[in-house]
Amino acid sequence: MSNHQNDLIFIGKKPLMTYVTSTIVQLATRPSVTIKARGLTTSIAIDVAQLVIKKTKPAFEISNVCIGSESLVSSDGRNRDVSTIDISIKRTIA
Amino acid sequence: MSNHQNDLIFIGKKPLMTYVTSTIVQLATRPSVTIKARGLTTSIAIDVAQLVIKKTKPAFEISNVCIGSESLVSSDGRNRDVSTIDISIKRTIA
Repeated sequence: MSNHQNDLIFIGKKPLMTYVTSTIVQLATRPSVTIKARGLTTSIAIDVAQLVIKKTKPAFEISNVCIGSESLVSSDGRNRDVSTIDISIKRTIA
Repeated sequence: MSNHQNDLIFIGKKPLMTYVTSTIVQLATRPSVTIKARGLTTSIAIDVAQLVIKKTKPAFEISNVCIGSESLVSSDGRNRDVSTIDISIKRTIA
């Protein structure tokens, strides 16, 4: 299966543990998973990453954290910049 | 002056631009500044970093992003883990 979309977990409005579980499920079959979030959910992304690491200790580690911003057009037609975060989690080399 | 405390900007409850201004002021005299935040303010820290980079473009860049968690004792006496973020901004090598 070469569907790389599955390597991404987008953080939305579901309960926190939903994302923790899906990340751990994805990590079972893939070498690395990236957690992506933007705006106010960026803090939830960090919580998810920390929980995944804590629950699966010492199997996985955070390999990279990237922050950036994206330009969105809001409902009133103006451009708004929102902050984004990408957290990559990979298997620890034993 | 060897007071390294000034290299840190802690994100709290002040308006966003307060932190953007203090970061830029600190960067004028120091090689690098670290923006620190925990809990829900982590998303504000990312906004601050993005605004600093955007406003001073191309003078500074993000050199490192670190995420972690801290254990706090909440008011009801229980331990709570909160997520933290440290964003380092340094001068671009011209």
